[in-house]
Amino acid sequence: MAHGYDENKDRLLKRLNRIEGQIRGLGKMVADDKYCIDILTQISAARSALDKVAVELVRDHAKHCLSGHSAAGKTDEKADELADAISRML
Amino acid sequence: MAHGYDENKDRLLKRLNRIEGQIRGLGKMVADDKYCIDILTQISAARSALDKVAVELVRDHAKHCLSGHSAAGKTDEKADELADAISRML
Amino acid sequence: MAHGYDENKDRLLKRLNRIEGQIRGLGKMVADDKYCIDILTQISAARSALDKVAVELVRDHAKHCLSGHSAAGKTDEKADELADAISRML
Amino acid sequence: MAHGYDENKDRLLKRLNRIEGQIRGLGKMVADDKYCIDILTQISAARSALDKVAVELVRDHAKHCLSGHSAAGKTDEKADELADAISRML
Repeated sequence: MAHGYDENKDRLLKRLNRIEGQIRGLGKMVADDKYCIDILTQISAARSALDKVAVELVRDHAKHCLSGHSAAGKTDEKADELADAISRML
Repeated sequence: MAHGYDENKDRLLKRLNRIEGQIRGLGKMVADDKYCIDILTQISAARSALDKVAVELVRDHAKHCLSGHSAAGKTDEKADELADAISRML
Repeated sequence: MAHGYDENKDRLLKRLNRIEGQIRGLGKMVADDKYCIDILTQISAARSALDKVAVELVRDHAKHCLSGHSAAGKTDEKADELADAISRML
Repeated sequence: MAHGYDENKDRLLKRLNRIEGQIRGLGKMVADDKYCIDILTQISAARSALDKVAVELVRDHAKHCLSGHSAAGKTDEKADELADAISRML
């Protein structure tokens, strides 16, 4: 099934790969007894990177739906779905 | 000009009115030397209330755009606008 | 009762006053049928301003507690209180 | 060097390990063409899990500092550090 993010799939996968590395790095920081505040700073960085993936998904999804690819007559449902997903991020 | 939130205008205004009261209440807490942590708790409440207004605007906007009210040929622009607005909230 | 934010009270009150004005401005934008995305942008601005007040309260509170003003033997309780307050903001 | 989170090190490592798995799962969802909104929901879950790690670090750090383990005379510096770290999370 085609999705809004199809074109950006490689880019999204690369980003997620990098975030996975960031989380692994956080584990290493904890294992190596790094300073709390430095770990918090890296958590913020990983969180921002995740937020960017979310925003790209929203962007691609919105483009996909707006260009008429969402099932006709389901516009309210699609809008609710998106708003609820964003609500869970805030 | 018609907007997505037209139908919910009264409800949005009521919510914003209540948030304005919450912020005024925060000022009163500071003026009355209330305990920091209690003020932080009320800040979280006001913040959540603002987030709910944002989510309702996103919902109404998405419904409006998806139901074909957005100018034809501007779908990418609309999607970018929305994604960028969400990005500023995260 | 003395609090961590005593010295910054005027500054905090000024900030909260300004945020109250921002929320009132949001109400006016809705009443005047302004464009959703522009309202969302202003919501982000009000939210950031609230976050800054929260951070200042955390800063003053931490300074106050760390400089020995928190009741002895209650350090764990104070730390939990702070962590829980931050948890509600995230 | 002793840190606030020493006692919770195993628990933190377990949590970070689980989050790493969540991020890997996100990559798999993208690779498998899962539905955007479902991916967004899983991003929210990973983000919340990261936030919980951050809150635990703040809690342990605050306990550590408040119980007198932070270098004397550096209380303002410690408080600023913490407030700035939280500011980057909001």
